[in-house]
Amino acid sequence: MIRNLSMMTDLYQLTMMYGYYKHGMQNNVAVFDLFFRRNGISYAVAAGLEQVIEYIRNIHMDANDIAYLRSLNLFDEEFLDMLINFRFTGDIDAMPEGSIVFPNEPLVRVKAPIMEAQFIETALLNIVNHQTLIATKASRVVHAAGGGGVMEFGLRRAQGPDAGIYGARAAIIGGCIGTSNVLTGQMYEVPAMGTHAHSWVMSFPDEISAFRAYAKTFPDQCLLLVDTYDTLKSGMPNAIKVFRELRAAGHEPMGIRLDSGDLAYLSKQARRMMDEAGFENAKVVASGDLDEEVIWDLRAQGAAIDTWGVGTKMITSADLPALGGVYKMSGEIGPDGALVPKIKVSDNPVKITNPGMKTVWRIYGKTSGKALADLIALEDDTFDTEKPLTIFDPTETWKRMTLRDYTMRKLLVPIFREGRQVYAAPSLMDIQHYCESELDTFWEEYKRLVKPHTYKVDLSDRLYDLKKKLLNEARPEF
Amino acid sequence: MIRNLSMMTDLYQLTMMYGYYKHGMQNNVAVFDLFFRRNGISYAVAAGLEQVIEYIRNIHMDANDIAYLRSLNLFDEEFLDMLINFRFTGDIDAMPEGSIVFPNEPLVRVKAPIMEAQFIETALLNIVNHQTLIATKASRVVHAAGGGGVMEFGLRRAQGPDAGIYGARAAIIGGCIGTSNVLTGQMYEVPAMGTHAHSWVMSFPDEISAFRAYAKTFPDQCLLLVDTYDTLKSGMPNAIKVFRELRAAGHEPMGIRLDSGDLAYLSKQARRMMDEAGFENAKVVASGDLDEEVIWDLRAQGAAIDTWGVGTKMITSADLPALGGVYKMSGEIGPDGALVPKIKVSDNPVKITNPGMKTVWRIYGKTSGKALADLIALEDDTFDTEKPLTIFDPTETWKRMTLRDYTMRKLLVPIFREGRQVYAAPSLMDIQHYCESELDTFWEEYKRLVKPHTYKVDLSDRLYDLKKKLLNEARPEF
Repeated sequence: MIRNLSMMTDLYQLTMMYGYYKHGMQNNVAVFDLFFRRNGISYAVAAGLEQVIEYIRNIHMDANDIAYLRSLNLFDEEFLDMLINFRFTGDIDAMPEGSIVFPNEPLVRVKAPIMEAQFIETALLNIVNHQTLIATKASRVVHAAGGGGVMEFGLRRAQGPDAGIYGARAAIIGGCIGTSNVLTGQMYEVPAMGTHAHSWVMSFPDEISAFRAYAKTFPDQCLLLVDTYDTLKSGMPNAIKVFRELRAAGHEPMGIRLDSGDLAYLSKQARRMMDEAGFENAKVVASGDLDEEVIWDLRAQGAAIDTWGVGTKMITSADLPALGGVYKMSGEIGPDGALVPKIKVSDNPVKITNPGMKTVWRIYGKTSGKALADLIALEDDTFDTEKPLTIFDPTETWKRMTLRDYTMRKLLVPIFREGRQVYAAPSLMDIQHYCESELDTFWEEYKRLVKPHTYKVDLSDRLYDLKKKLLNEARPEF
Repeated sequence: MIRNLSMMTDLYQLTMMYGYYKHGMQNNVAVFDLFFRRNGISYAVAAGLEQVIEYIRNIHMDANDIAYLRSLNLFDEEFLDMLINFRFTGDIDAMPEGSIVFPNEPLVRVKAPIMEAQFIETALLNIVNHQTLIATKASRVVHAAGGGGVMEFGLRRAQGPDAGIYGARAAIIGGCIGTSNVLTGQMYEVPAMGTHAHSWVMSFPDEISAFRAYAKTFPDQCLLLVDTYDTLKSGMPNAIKVFRELRAAGHEPMGIRLDSGDLAYLSKQARRMMDEAGFENAKVVASGDLDEEVIWDLRAQGAAIDTWGVGTKMITSADLPALGGVYKMSGEIGPDGALVPKIKVSDNPVKITNPGMKTVWRIYGKTSGKALADLIALEDDTFDTEKPLTIFDPTETWKRMTLRDYTMRKLLVPIFREGRQVYAAPSLMDIQHYCESELDTFWEEYKRLVKPHTYKVDLSDRLYDLKKKLLNEARPEF
């Protein structure tokens, strides 16, 4: 089921590759960082690495692909010949999936011959941007639901098949307990969930016949959708009647699903009716245009909802439909083998990149075990955790803090070395558990849905100085 | 390259199928409509039918799929055996891709054994929802650009590979002149476009060396990105220097690309500088966070931009990231072979469905050739265009209009008959041209980006009466 996505790249990657090739620069080794800029979300959940690995391992162009590229009349035969054996031979470091990540931190770092580093840009951005976006959204939705389970129900509204398949995968990373998407369930061994639709009820002469037929088919998984005609006057009384018949036959019902109307009011009424009828263990499932804000508000109003089915707004990340991740050159290995750091300047300070070969350290309080701040540092920066560490905001540099009794952990791990995979991707459920335990290391203040406290992401002293120096040198004189 | 998406369905389709099977109802023939409700857009461009056809033709589950379904412990062996030979055997009618479509109009109509009609729901919605959404957004962007070409640049920000690949396909249907996505270019024989990125400039010692190297590589396709350091003080003077060298060597430059800063101001300055240097034919291309509103405003301010590169906001339809299309049962064939129309009621009037086997007619003025209104009608409704036709708003029924001198055209065409494809999908560029000519039949008032005039979509008299009758009968007595 692994597709070859090698041709899924922007044409300008190929024209640049050809340019480097024609100028004998194709083997110059460059370093690129994949990161996102501040975009209104407090934290993100890294996702998509497994698909990045599949993509990288699978890079190859066949005769049809070469014939197509020839037809563009842009490239010479020598270059096209070279593409037939084109593979990725570089190094990749990345944050494991499920990591909590913040603006400007490299999620993925690529060090490779510039032609290769450039070639993979578009696919890496596409995959990581998408899955990180949806895992992040799902994490917020799951947070809003408190302990209540969140089921991913968005396949029909996803932006195409992959958005449904890998969006559901990302939603599981973010903490969803299952998905309606059978293919994702099959591919990643995660729970597939669902019962019946309004059309089931409509295809029987009346609601009670539809409920009875469903209960007969699935006596031990009987969850009934009660809003086809009228939730409280028809759906609930019919459901309870069928629940009683089920119990008489030795089965316990699972519960009911609400898909329209005021979910706070209806859930409380449905709960009361089931309790009064002796079905205290039957669950109330709610769906219908939900997102983290609606769930939070419904819970604040005491809605009696046990499980949430969330579709359109989670699978499309409706309030922020693109993460906005970018892939920027941070350095190039010079003829002497040393890295020449590079910076991209801009009139807009947030668009100025961090130069050099970097990594990310997370600093934890020794006693609390909680994350205190992240430090973007040069790869060869060293830290002595026995000594106090003073960190400062890279823009408002007077905001400083001195840390004592802390530990540090490096967040980027090696994925490829010289084109060889050196990392074993964990199972999807393991990634979900990792994400949950990572989130536990953050104070609740950072996870608040509205106006969360801003987590500190600072630069190491050496990186800060390097950036300042390059910025001053960067603009050529006119 | 056609994937088997058969397992890409919601689990509840399979549980309902099993239920129908266990109750001997699997061969009951049902009719479903795929349509969207009013969602803030004035018109939509139908897209995705070719991928629906591929999906339908390719439906099959293999031994691994069956083994997975068995592992869910929901289905019996007889049902699983039946799934091995499961195929689509029904009828599908649809609006051809590129059609202009309005809320509540069936884009796709399925008539099939209920088990099959239910099985295909999720994939049909996923595909049609996505591509129709992006084709619609692209149509708006292209409209805003007036005659200027729009290039689709969104692959890196699309919601996964398919969203990039088929989103670009849909953007071409909506009128884009090309895409940066090489794979879409290859798959659908449409122009792939692009030149170079900031990283190209950064990998040379200075901007002019980067420009010279690019011009040397592509002397006849030389389009230079001028904003890496400073557009007007560095990029433009360097570009013009290289353009002069190119011309001296017998080549004409293509132009420059702006990707940041104020595009109205910078484009006018860049235009002036190129004109003064004698490069009146060199083009100004602009990109960077564009959508239809920004393009419209930039043009209103006289921006000297010839071609637009549009990424994130078009490929994600950022202001409306889901079309919201639904798939609702409209009838079932009874034991006597006659259709029993079905209605889904709701407290919310816009969620009440239109019952019966329906089609859509478009009414044109005989003299103007322009579309006057659409009529959702029962399939067996007949019209005599020699006689005046009175149409009325289905909600505000006092809004009526009597038409004379009109012609009518049926918008749904047969795609499958008894599981056999009876429709030949046109090429992507033919679909683009069809869409353009269809749009030409609508007055500009309907295409305005802000507060457009609402196009009339009414119900035929017989459909209106049927709906009223079923609504009155629908709520069971309590």
